[in-house]
Amino acid sequence: MQFISEKPENGVVERDFTIGEITGVLWSPEAPEPGAPLILVGHSGGVHKRAPNLVTNARHLATESGYFVAAIDAPGHGDRPRNAEDERWVEQLHAARAAGQPMDTIIAEFNLSLAERAVPEWRATLDALQALPEIGPDAPVGFGGITLGTVIGMHLVAVEPRIKAANFGSVFVFDALFDIAKQISIPLTLDVAWHDEEIDRQPSFALFDAFASEDKILLARPGRHNQMASSQPGYGAWFLRQHLGR
Amino acid sequence: MQFISEKPENGVVERDFTIGEITGVLWSPEAPEPGAPLILVGHSGGVHKRAPNLVTNARHLATESGYFVAAIDAPGHGDRPRNAEDERWVEQLHAARAAGQPMDTIIAEFNLSLAERAVPEWRATLDALQALPEIGPDAPVGFGGITLGTVIGMHLVAVEPRIKAANFGSVFVFDALFDIAKQISIPLTLDVAWHDEEIDRQPSFALFDAFASEDKILLARPGRHNQMASSQPGYGAWFLRQHLGR
Repeated sequence: MQFISEKPENGVVERDFTIGEITGVLWSPEAPEPGAPLILVGHSGGVHKRAPNLVTNARHLATESGYFVAAIDAPGHGDRPRNAEDERWVEQLHAARAAGQPMDTIIAEFNLSLAERAVPEWRATLDALQALPEIGPDAPVGFGGITLGTVIGMHLVAVEPRIKAANFGSVFVFDALFDIAKQISIPLTLDVAWHDEEIDRQPSFALFDAFASEDKILLARPGRHNQMASSQPGYGAWFLRQHLGR
Repeated sequence: MQFISEKPENGVVERDFTIGEITGVLWSPEAPEPGAPLILVGHSGGVHKRAPNLVTNARHLATESGYFVAAIDAPGHGDRPRNAEDERWVEQLHAARAAGQPMDTIIAEFNLSLAERAVPEWRATLDALQALPEIGPDAPVGFGGITLGTVIGMHLVAVEPRIKAANFGSVFVFDALFDIAKQISIPLTLDVAWHDEEIDRQPSFALFDAFASEDKILLARPGRHNQMASSQPGYGAWFLRQHLGR
């Protein structure tokens, strides 16, 4: 893990890092308490580790809860090159959108492929973060994500016992997610955008039912999925504090 | 307003009071801060101002948020005599339940009648509470309730501009509530019991849509409405703090 920049700002230290091909950013409270929890945050499809809503949420978690927060670029996103297959999916998405055709199958295939590649990257990132003296192996770990970040996060949580609670933001639901949800039993929230022309709420209800978690909360707000995110930090942070402490 | 008992316990002072025929209880932090918010709490149908979930919630609000919390018995509930008409509704409910017949119409009529009588009682109670020197007229006021308490609270909030935020617990939805919801525009949460053989979730969704509030959150959890209440104080308190302060 290489840190390549360090910027203190309003009580939070923001550091860019790389781990091999992985590009990420770590937000730390200026004076972290020993054992402060760590939240892994996944960005939406098409954006990157510094999407404005993600940064707002990360800084809120660092200042209000005293948490460490880390985000990495999904494969082919942000500072990472797209491979030929990813280029093809992106072109197909643009073409389908322009033609007003359904994008479901493309999104499902693309997101699944990204999730498969992102899971080992997140696990390597978590290893590296836990090796930092200020975080350490015993810090409680949570996950927060939206759309693509939720798809990746679900795949990660299903195989990664170190993650103890999650905020899953609005997600475009496809069939493969139900089998993943059944493998997840940690406390979680699932956000549903109540009015969204792109993400229908009924499949989100079915996904909520599929999670094996006993402690799960479905949280719905008016608006589209990308309008919701900005008002979310407070609630997500509250839920994580119940389960990770502080 | 007559205080008829005072019991300090675990950081909270619990006082029974009467205002004419109204019987109530006020929970106060042992050392309230000036201007601390006041939450009015409405109990479920068939129980009273000291229902266990309500008391848990009230004590949590007093200790964790430093709020004042007041509950009054609905007409014909708790320490208050039932009139002949209420007796008839209660008998009809028991008979319908025993016979496995629908209770919708009875619940709607009974709850509406109770709400009509309870609203002026709550307003008189709020007047009396604001006249107490430790609360005063400028304390932010919120409302929390479940089932019957939500029906009464909706009627109260629709006409009472002093109430600035509300937690509405699970409610059996009937037609008259939609017109009331359209008159309500304060920030609010609406709880939905995700699996409930008595309260279907679809009418709750329609009720959520009907509220005029821009800042509204639908919050769903697995379980029946009476199972949910116990795990709720933390979330409701978080939402109220966002809007009432502290």
